[in-house]
Amino acid sequence: MKRIGVFTSGGDAPGMNAAIRAVVRQAHALGLEVIGIRRGYAGMILGEMVPLGVRDVANILQRGGTILLTARSQEFLTEEGRAKAAARLKAAGIGGLVAIGGDGTFRGAMRLTEEQGVPVVGVPGTIDNDLYGTDYTIGFDTAVNTALEAIDRIRDTAASHERVFFIEVMGRDSGFIALDVGLAGGAEVIAVPEEPLDPKAIAEGLLESQRRGKTSSIVVVAEGAYPGGAAGLLAAIKEHVRVEARVTVLGHIQRGGSPTAKDRILASRLGAAAVEALARSTGGVMVGEVEGEVAFTPLKEAVERKKDINRVLLGLSRVLAL
Amino acid sequence: MKRIGVFTSGGDAPGMNAAIRAVVRQAHALGLEVIGIRRGYAGMILGEMVPLGVRDVANILQRGGTILLTARSQEFLTEEGRAKAAARLKAAGIGGLVAIGGDGTFRGAMRLTEEQGVPVVGVPGTIDNDLYGTDYTIGFDTAVNTALEAIDRIRDTAASHERVFFIEVMGRDSGFIALDVGLAGGAEVIAVPEEPLDPKAIAEGLLESQRRGKTSSIVVVAEGAYPGGAAGLLAAIKEHVRVEARVTVLGHIQRGGSPTAKDRILASRLGAAAVEALARSTGGVMVGEVEGEVAFTPLKEAVERKKDINRVLLGLSRVLAL
Amino acid sequence: MKRIGVFTSGGDAPGMNAAIRAVVRQAHALGLEVIGIRRGYAGMILGEMVPLGVRDVANILQRGGTILLTARSQEFLTEEGRAKAAARLKAAGIGGLVAIGGDGTFRGAMRLTEEQGVPVVGVPGTIDNDLYGTDYTIGFDTAVNTALEAIDRIRDTAASHERVFFIEVMGRDSGFIALDVGLAGGAEVIAVPEEPLDPKAIAEGLLESQRRGKTSSIVVVAEGAYPGGAAGLLAAIKEHVRVEARVTVLGHIQRGGSPTAKDRILASRLGAAAVEALARSTGGVMVGEVEGEVAFTPLKEAVERKKDINRVLLGLSRVLAL
Amino acid sequence: MKRIGVFTSGGDAPGMNAAIRAVVRQAHALGLEVIGIRRGYAGMILGEMVPLGVRDVANILQRGGTILLTARSQEFLTEEGRAKAAARLKAAGIGGLVAIGGDGTFRGAMRLTEEQGVPVVGVPGTIDNDLYGTDYTIGFDTAVNTALEAIDRIRDTAASHERVFFIEVMGRDSGFIALDVGLAGGAEVIAVPEEPLDPKAIAEGLLESQRRGKTSSIVVVAEGAYPGGAAGLLAAIKEHVRVEARVTVLGHIQRGGSPTAKDRILASRLGAAAVEALARSTGGVMVGEVEGEVAFTPLKEAVERKKDINRVLLGLSRVLAL
Repeated sequence: MKRIGVFTSGGDAPGMNAAIRAVVRQAHALGLEVIGIRRGYAGMILGEMVPLGVRDVANILQRGGTILLTARSQEFLTEEGRAKAAARLKAAGIGGLVAIGGDGTFRGAMRLTEEQGVPVVGVPGTIDNDLYGTDYTIGFDTAVNTALEAIDRIRDTAASHERVFFIEVMGRDSGFIALDVGLAGGAEVIAVPEEPLDPKAIAEGLLESQRRGKTSSIVVVAEGAYPGGAAGLLAAIKEHVRVEARVTVLGHIQRGGSPTAKDRILASRLGAAAVEALARSTGGVMVGEVEGEVAFTPLKEAVERKKDINRVLLGLSRVLAL
Repeated sequence: MKRIGVFTSGGDAPGMNAAIRAVVRQAHALGLEVIGIRRGYAGMILGEMVPLGVRDVANILQRGGTILLTARSQEFLTEEGRAKAAARLKAAGIGGLVAIGGDGTFRGAMRLTEEQGVPVVGVPGTIDNDLYGTDYTIGFDTAVNTALEAIDRIRDTAASHERVFFIEVMGRDSGFIALDVGLAGGAEVIAVPEEPLDPKAIAEGLLESQRRGKTSSIVVVAEGAYPGGAAGLLAAIKEHVRVEARVTVLGHIQRGGSPTAKDRILASRLGAAAVEALARSTGGVMVGEVEGEVAFTPLKEAVERKKDINRVLLGLSRVLAL
Repeated sequence: MKRIGVFTSGGDAPGMNAAIRAVVRQAHALGLEVIGIRRGYAGMILGEMVPLGVRDVANILQRGGTILLTARSQEFLTEEGRAKAAARLKAAGIGGLVAIGGDGTFRGAMRLTEEQGVPVVGVPGTIDNDLYGTDYTIGFDTAVNTALEAIDRIRDTAASHERVFFIEVMGRDSGFIALDVGLAGGAEVIAVPEEPLDPKAIAEGLLESQRRGKTSSIVVVAEGAYPGGAAGLLAAIKEHVRVEARVTVLGHIQRGGSPTAKDRILASRLGAAAVEALARSTGGVMVGEVEGEVAFTPLKEAVERKKDINRVLLGLSRVLAL
Repeated sequence: MKRIGVFTSGGDAPGMNAAIRAVVRQAHALGLEVIGIRRGYAGMILGEMVPLGVRDVANILQRGGTILLTARSQEFLTEEGRAKAAARLKAAGIGGLVAIGGDGTFRGAMRLTEEQGVPVVGVPGTIDNDLYGTDYTIGFDTAVNTALEAIDRIRDTAASHERVFFIEVMGRDSGFIALDVGLAGGAEVIAVPEEPLDPKAIAEGLLESQRRGKTSSIVVVAEGAYPGGAAGLLAAIKEHVRVEARVTVLGHIQRGGSPTAKDRILASRLGAAAVEALARSTGGVMVGEVEGEVAFTPLKEAVERKKDINRVLLGLSRVLAL
């Protein structure tokens, strides 16, 4: 292999640029050329490619978003589309790919490998932290800190008005963001998809904490924790007790911004490790960090196995939210 | 007058604590005692009062929210309620008040003065900047910078996905926040309540800018600029053209956070000036800053006259958003 | 005039990129072409020029530093050097210049106009705020907020250790940054070059405030307020009383970072106004903002007249720092 | 044991308040009373104690510094001083202590246990991350991100002026902060105490990278990496080659500020675990987090064994800094 491709796909995450930079520079150190593929699988099919030298990735380490852009592709979901993509890669002399993204990205990558014979190594870039085979995904730490900063602001208002706030954070199927943000933000309640929710019990808990003298509370709700998200949960609670509360949906601010130190380091490490893995293997794996060490997991497992939230921390949040 | 009261009322705004600190310390310098009244007019009626010495306001200059809390009061809307409040003030030996808040706060203050004979000086504390008689209200600069930071984050995602984002900022009746945030955030369109909106024209403008090669755009919408806010405006636009866009409502994060330098300085200056004015007058005025100088405006005018947004800047935003 | 040039020179300031963007887009609206000159006067002599279209300045509004780079030039201080620069401009068909920078930049611009007949309009881009003819320079608000954030952090430590901190901020000849940062940061003492300093009196003031129960204090020192800056002042104070204090020099962090809303708006406004002025005049002026309105001042006056700090605010800082 | 004490000592670190909160609330959950001891060992000797209920630690989770204050104590270094402290604890009915701090704090704690029979559990609160027995200390992640933000600002200036900057970060004996900040900040060189430094080789590396087209560089220097810190290293380099560079010492800003999510979660977890450990043991251990799990290490080991920096990451930084 003398030339590899790199692309980002799916939702953008802070640190993707740091990963691209590491891919390019580690490849350079190993004597490999790098081609950047723009707009994910859509651009791959159209042949949107640009050579990336070591100076092309200067000064992007600290930038949010992705310089390679990202897009969805219906065509890539068909075998015909994937064959086109593979033909483009072959024509460009690209012998292997580093795919930076989440589970949708990796499902596509698996097919590209199995069906079209293109070696791919995955780098976990998603704020959701919902991939098996890595303790943290690139972008998660930044998203958590961004949401936390928002909660700190809202708490000023909550405390001044002595109100309850329901704050919805990202996480359709997983509560990683909600748990970390809730614990770090001193939330009274943390609602995650992994645990059954009892609106009546939450209602009683809020009343009970008011009786104990707590004049304002924060409830953190993962978007997938209850039908209708934070607003849905509040409505369900109001069927049981009269609680005055406001809802804020943090939304897309959680995706952007300059990555934290941790995300930059993780992205640097995994981007570099992905190139090394690609250089010496036939791909089909995701590179992750497990207990501080680089680890490889088959893409299939990374996507299909479920990583659980830390139940100990969830329990701790209840003890601390007095 | 030997003893004055200070309270915050209405929506909280960053810098209210800086104003409280300035009131207490300037009063001290003039030989006046200060009583803090908690929870606005509600607390005034109930006699929730606490003496504030110079050390009681140490280390609050940088804090968001208000240490005196804020609340709404139905009872104060009645003459009976106001009489109770005045009686409480008299019993506590309070000869005058500094009222920190927005137009609702000042309407209450006017009645307290006219009807009950209590001298009140108003300090403009609201993120909305919608008070006549001051170029800027306390909290506005912080709210604008907080919203701007959010927009900078969202732009990372907008640029990476080549999407249009509709971002709703606070401002029911006024477009001050939307204008400054939109201009500083490089918005393609800034929708304010002060100007008629034509969804069809906006739609065509967005298409036109795509034709010019702009792949992502930000539309900033004041919540009162269109029925239904940003989501309502987007729906109206979609009746004309097919534009894929996402909506984010920034919400309560705009109220909180540590105040900017400008808000702390403005709050310090106006808080101190309010005490000086109270010491030598019978109140009934709001203290503001006009063209860099402290200025006084009758409360009635501050509330009833309409301050206009800067149309020159609105025009400039259109030239710059190419 | 059909083609104008724009360059940045001297120390960089947050908002310079926002000004460049405004110059390019306003010029485009007026039918003028824009050439970017890299590395200030040094690049002008060498003919380092690049055409700037409206899309070339996309996504730079929020960036610190300057995309046109900046440098010092010994050669431009000679008449020969300036003649070379003028020849380059003529050869490139550049009929006028927008110069973004501080007093050094404007002194060069004056000579270029007077001696070589090149029309130049100045835009005040410097964190120091020391130019006559504008209430604020581009970059000042960002620098103040950056320094303030640093002081807020240091206060956590100062309060926890019950210590005095001497913090040095930028400002060789002027105390604008020190005054705003000190007032907003609750400094016990603000040392500016515009006022004589008495180390003994400061020493006694610090002791006195300890006697009043203040356990930690912040002293803000403009670098030019005392020989040796903050460290020099502390040493002089220690000759009079035993005060344990730490020194922190904020240094270059004050120059960088994403500009605040205010700096972006100011830069947008002044950049656009500079092009308008250049299109209809023979230059020789600086465009500024005075009491909220765009104003023009001869470059000579901007550089030679001294703008004073706000003495009222300096007095206020003493009342509030109890 | 029915009553425990908690105190902070040594340099303050962001997250100490989060740890205090966790101690108080976990103790409450276990039916233990908590006494806060102010000003570390100095306050312990003087009996500066205050009961801490669950509401007393409300709203401190996000605050930098320590509400219990910190101080140095010469007297505690004597056996007599420690006996006084133990007598105070006994008189107050305190059966065990949670000590939040760094190695100096733990050395004192060991003596208190061994000599005076007071059970102590240590919680690692120091920005330096130099304690054996925990992957991260409380405050480290915040300090790294604060320093990184400063470097991002300085890079704006470095890039605009095409200069080299030498930035000194904290770390007298260890390079943890320097390594993470340098890697995340894209430093050309990272100078740590753990590795021998060759000024000549660094000089040549800087020249070489200029030849490769890199116009600005960041060199991160741990304060203990070279005699005289960053300024000392630069002087040594200048003996070999002519390199124009600026020095910035970040200093005390690294200690303060609101803790990151990671530091708040770590502090919450370790604070709670410390109380559990104290309730069921005789102390003498530090509670840490190793590979994601709570772990206990004898205080003696925590202090005396040396934790090494991650050499893999140091090597990676060299590959990536092209």
